[in-house]
Amino acid sequence: MAKGITKRKDNYYKWYNDIVMKAGLAENSSVRGCMVIKPYGFAIWEKMKECLDKMFKETGHENAYFPLFIPKSFFSKEANHVDGFAKECAVVTHYRLKNKEDGTIVVDETAKLEEELIIRPTSETIIWSTYKKWIQSYRDLPILINQWANVVRWEMRTRLFLRTAEFLWQEGHTAHASKKEALDETIQMLNIYSEFAEKWMAMPVIKGKKTENEKFAGAIETFSIEALMQDGKALQSGTSHFLGQNFAKAFDVKFTNKTGKLEYVWASSWGVSTRLMGALIMAHSDDKGLVLPPKLAPIQVVIIPIYRKKEELITIKKVVNKILIKLKEKGISYKFDERDTHRPGHKFAEYELKGVPIRLAIGKRDIKNGTIELARRDTYEKKTYEQIGIENIIQELLEEIQENIYLKAIKFRKENSHIVNTYDEFKKVINEKQGFVFAHWDGTSETEKKIKNETKASIRNIPFGYPEEEGKCIVTGKYSKQRVIFAKAY
Amino acid sequence: MAKGITKRKDNYYKWYNDIVMKAGLAENSSVRGCMVIKPYGFAIWEKMKECLDKMFKETGHENAYFPLFIPKSFFSKEANHVDGFAKECAVVTHYRLKNKEDGTIVVDETAKLEEELIIRPTSETIIWSTYKKWIQSYRDLPILINQWANVVRWEMRTRLFLRTAEFLWQEGHTAHASKKEALDETIQMLNIYSEFAEKWMAMPVIKGKKTENEKFAGAIETFSIEALMQDGKALQSGTSHFLGQNFAKAFDVKFTNKTGKLEYVWASSWGVSTRLMGALIMAHSDDKGLVLPPKLAPIQVVIIPIYRKKEELITIKKVVNKILIKLKEKGISYKFDERDTHRPGHKFAEYELKGVPIRLAIGKRDIKNGTIELARRDTYEKKTYEQIGIENIIQELLEEIQENIYLKAIKFRKENSHIVNTYDEFKKVINEKQGFVFAHWDGTSETEKKIKNETKASIRNIPFGYPEEEGKCIVTGKYSKQRVIFAKAY
Repeated sequence: MAKGITKRKDNYYKWYNDIVMKAGLAENSSVRGCMVIKPYGFAIWEKMKECLDKMFKETGHENAYFPLFIPKSFFSKEANHVDGFAKECAVVTHYRLKNKEDGTIVVDETAKLEEELIIRPTSETIIWSTYKKWIQSYRDLPILINQWANVVRWEMRTRLFLRTAEFLWQEGHTAHASKKEALDETIQMLNIYSEFAEKWMAMPVIKGKKTENEKFAGAIETFSIEALMQDGKALQSGTSHFLGQNFAKAFDVKFTNKTGKLEYVWASSWGVSTRLMGALIMAHSDDKGLVLPPKLAPIQVVIIPIYRKKEELITIKKVVNKILIKLKEKGISYKFDERDTHRPGHKFAEYELKGVPIRLAIGKRDIKNGTIELARRDTYEKKTYEQIGIENIIQELLEEIQENIYLKAIKFRKENSHIVNTYDEFKKVINEKQGFVFAHWDGTSETEKKIKNETKASIRNIPFGYPEEEGKCIVTGKYSKQRVIFAKAY
Repeated sequence: MAKGITKRKDNYYKWYNDIVMKAGLAENSSVRGCMVIKPYGFAIWEKMKECLDKMFKETGHENAYFPLFIPKSFFSKEANHVDGFAKECAVVTHYRLKNKEDGTIVVDETAKLEEELIIRPTSETIIWSTYKKWIQSYRDLPILINQWANVVRWEMRTRLFLRTAEFLWQEGHTAHASKKEALDETIQMLNIYSEFAEKWMAMPVIKGKKTENEKFAGAIETFSIEALMQDGKALQSGTSHFLGQNFAKAFDVKFTNKTGKLEYVWASSWGVSTRLMGALIMAHSDDKGLVLPPKLAPIQVVIIPIYRKKEELITIKKVVNKILIKLKEKGISYKFDERDTHRPGHKFAEYELKGVPIRLAIGKRDIKNGTIELARRDTYEKKTYEQIGIENIIQELLEEIQENIYLKAIKFRKENSHIVNTYDEFKKVINEKQGFVFAHWDGTSETEKKIKNETKASIRNIPFGYPEEEGKCIVTGKYSKQRVIFAKAY
């Protein structure tokens, strides 16, 4: 384990990268823009997947799998979609390599595809071309399908988890007999994302509608959850799109409704990705490393023996084994680190770096006294407890830690949310403090673009559940129905 | 639901395709050679994944994720590997499309990659290029990593699940400090595959070593499990490779051993894929459709109400709900199909087609008598039971069905395994009966190729655990240490 990581205040960017690399979450690969997700990082992602998958299935969704490749012509079918997605993408043009005489291998020019294939940047087109075969009548609806998959978007500037050329995600694609049903689905999934972010990731988010400029290419309306990171930047953490009949029209997917009339099918799509890993890291971590919410921690408790002689370790192990049995009964995940190649202090730092919520340490004196030392990752508090019943204390503490880091993030967001009423004030806040800035906007793309050009702040969303307090646009002075959230964003 | 499927004896190929399509397992997509795995098929695959993943983790493996893309030059580094894999593959040459004036989109020729990227057909090269960074000392070993991923091999003739351009699989890639450890790992994983095939898929397999001709491109030794399908053809269902130091040498991955000396790392790799779905379908199904082993059935019990009037359905539902609670308590998955759009006979046929192991039917008279009718998918036996305690009968029956279809497959394999001692006899059996043919072979590639050219039968493997009965090669009469398994294969 490498020693120490960059401090947030010294270089936030390096701090983030240090955690990702040194906690063993991910690293850059030999392929430009593509990452390797390392076992510890992948274990966290697996926990996220498992939880989300359960939520999807509980709301009636099924998983399926569609091709990685999309014929180029499919993209042209939905006009907005092609502009948004078909540009920076990986294009497969050939299907064979051959040996040259000098031993190198080259593309076999005789094996050129008639139509190029695009590696999916998102799967609306390939899925709606399939739904056309599946849907004839209202009896075939709704279709509620989700796919866990890899997608590729050829990004120029990449950053581990936050923006990579290839990333892992889930994409839900649903088909409905009515506009209302499709809209309800869109909002239901936004709520599921928000619940997951808050209850599992301990990350507060604001739900709302995206502006025309920022919506998904091909959607009628896009809704998002937006989280605030520790550097005051916003991170869009999940989106749910109401697609209207756009893709049904593009792929000619009609159904016979109950009155026998042919109608285009209504649609939604929604996704979250390994970007959530970036959000999780940045929402809670500190200058000693990762801080994980207990519900997503692959290891919830680490136990470190403090000993000099082998016999001491044997005695410690006997005591620890009894504790481990109790932890197992409670479904608490743990690791007993008895490696003799590393000193306890080194191990302490390692598990702090990896964000393990609770650390137990047990030595000779503890054995004599029937005690054990417990340290919390979130507050660094240390306290000595009786060994008997420690599993109950741990269980309660895990819940407390989950709650505590959520409240800490709420507090941070509160301190970094600003209400401004003039453009000067706006510019000052955005430049000096960042954070979420709640301001009035006249609803036009023009004003939105002007603000973005001049301040680099974009409208994150038009938030739900905020009082519809009327006012005047900070730039044009025109009527505004409610404040929207501005921020610089990842 | 479509009516009826082709009979095995009429057209085995169509029978298989009918089951895949009509049971809702998979279908061909708009992209040549790529399939869509439909929800019901994917639910079976998820059950397989879940079980295998547990077995991998219990033996100390962790999941991770490596890039989809492999730089072309990586393939040239292992001489045999490039011949085996770099030929028929999807090649990414560009990273941008652009709009033409006529509205169509074309590849942007200015966005050509300096080095082409290959969509992974298997990940040894990208993973060993990464392991180079991870391994310095014996303390970094072993590395026991598995990846669940999609891979692409540009197949000319494809068949749903059995051979598709893109397929889903897991690939384990392990790194070890000694030859023995790597070999032990290779065999351990072969045993895990065999256990999974027999205990979960109810599919008997023969473990053994592949010949030089048939081994993995880049391996020192390949081991396989081979299953016999109902048309008498063999299906290779999983492979585990001892890679020796081949990839360590190709990517220059050395470690300092305990005595301080630099050594190349030893390796294994192993994989099973969605091909197992094809094996599962062909191993057990009959002329009425899919037959699923209860342990992998997404729905283990279907309950169909027989009623005319709405009030009857209400009474039936009350009784059924009590049964469902008991089934849930026992962890048995079920579906109560109360659709009024389909008649009971139609539903019976539908769930037979889908291979649901147990069907319950309950009507007016059953309500009066406190009874319920139970039908087994594997034997079509029908019997009426008391409603009280039916959950216990179901639980026992599910185990019995699992065992029964396994024994049936064992019996089939026995009846279709032939011991032959002359080449004439061999040719006769291969042409007229197919099946597994146990024959002596002199151990040379020459003889193996000759037999394959003349009969289309290949050596499936050199089986383990078969008595090492010496003999003479059926073709050359030369010494043979043991019989090997020949068969025509998928």
